Amino acid sequence: MTFLSLFFIFSRKFEYSIKNGYNLSKDTFTNSRSKRGLCMNNDTKIKEVMGKAIAEAKKTMNDNVGGPFGAAIIDKEGKIVSVSSNSVLRDHDPTAHAEINAIRAAGEKLGTHDLSGCTLVTTAYPCPMCLGAIIWSNINHVIYGCRPKDAEAIGFRDDFIYRFIKDDHPDKKILAIDEAFREQCLILFKEYQEKEKTLY
Amino acid sequence: MTFLSLFFIFSRKFEYSIKNGYNLSKDTFTNSRSKRGLCMNNDTKIKEVMGKAIAEAKKTMNDNVGGPFGAAIIDKEGKIVSVSSNSVLRDHDPTAHAEINAIRAAGEKLGTHDLSGCTLVTTAYPCPMCLGAIIWSNINHVIYGCRPKDAEAIGFRDDFIYRFIKDDHPDKKILAIDEAFREQCLILFKEYQEKEKTLY
Repeated sequence: MTFLSLFFIFSRKFEYSIKNGYNLSKDTFTNSRSKRGLCMNNDTKIKEVMGKAIAEAKKTMNDNVGGPFGAAIIDKEGKIVSVSSNSVLRDHDPTAHAEINAIRAAGEKLGTHDLSGCTLVTTAYPCPMCLGAIIWSNINHVIYGCRPKDAEAIGFRDDFIYRFIKDDHPDKKILAIDEAFREQCLILFKEYQEKEKTLY
Repeated sequence: MTFLSLFFIFSRKFEYSIKNGYNLSKDTFTNSRSKRGLCMNNDTKIKEVMGKAIAEAKKTMNDNVGGPFGAAIIDKEGKIVSVSSNSVLRDHDPTAHAEINAIRAAGEKLGTHDLSGCTLVTTAYPCPMCLGAIIWSNINHVIYGCRPKDAEAIGFRDDFIYRFIKDDHPDKKILAIDEAFREQCLILFKEYQEKEKTLY
């Protein structure tokens, strides 16, 4: 069997696992990771990192700091850069999800907004806000525990927000979005386009 | 013509304007706002708030603090709660978009994660990260200037991330998402479900 055939089989298996939300076998994991050249060599490492995320979430959840969500970021070498949890209630900050907190902490620690090559391990599938943050940060691998419907079952709106985006904002009572003064804002964009700047 | 017919006509006109990304006329604006019981009585107020968002964006953009994006949050009475701009570069924080910064500042100022009744005015259509943050914060009205394709035209990935979410993560090179240790994370969720807590 050629390398290409093997690659194809694993790709299909991997895609199927993701699409159907199944737990991935150790083999599939190892293969999918090595395909992306990531750092973690075995499930023990992922288990250790997920354990830290769970422990952090448990601690802050029991102190009423926020919901039951934890996240950790690992760099290319497998070194833990940040471990955070949800702190929405304590910080009066609706954006303070575990993933956002972990990204902000990692950015601060590494001194860059660019977390290319890092992996984010999180106790639950990221909500659209966190998924957006992950892509903006250039993290290209996420390992999650619970599914959006699991979060919905304990009262969180992750899945609802995904449906809201996919269905093109069907409910104007939830959020009405109006356009105004586009011309004035385009002047700002034009000024940006013409200036010397750091693109990101 | 009955009030109901008028309401219907304006609703249709308003929906059409949003769907097609057109600039809304003053009449439509006033009507859509009054329908939602929002605070701003005329376009002059919106223009003033958008002006502040643009000015803030211009200042930080020229200092290389971040991209050309500004946002302001207004409370039920039309009082400005926060004015912020993008500070991704300065803060080494990929989540520091204008809208996220404005929400965080408003939460801190008002001492709550719940910004119900507030309106967010922003120089550009919120990216999925910011849209998620807006829904989590319970803000139910957004007024934006530039469109996602305008942001794309000057090098930003807002529109790309929308397509990525809507197409169910087609490109695994951008972001691969694996599930692992769901059972362990579900234990955390169960513990949360059973404890006394502040739901949000």
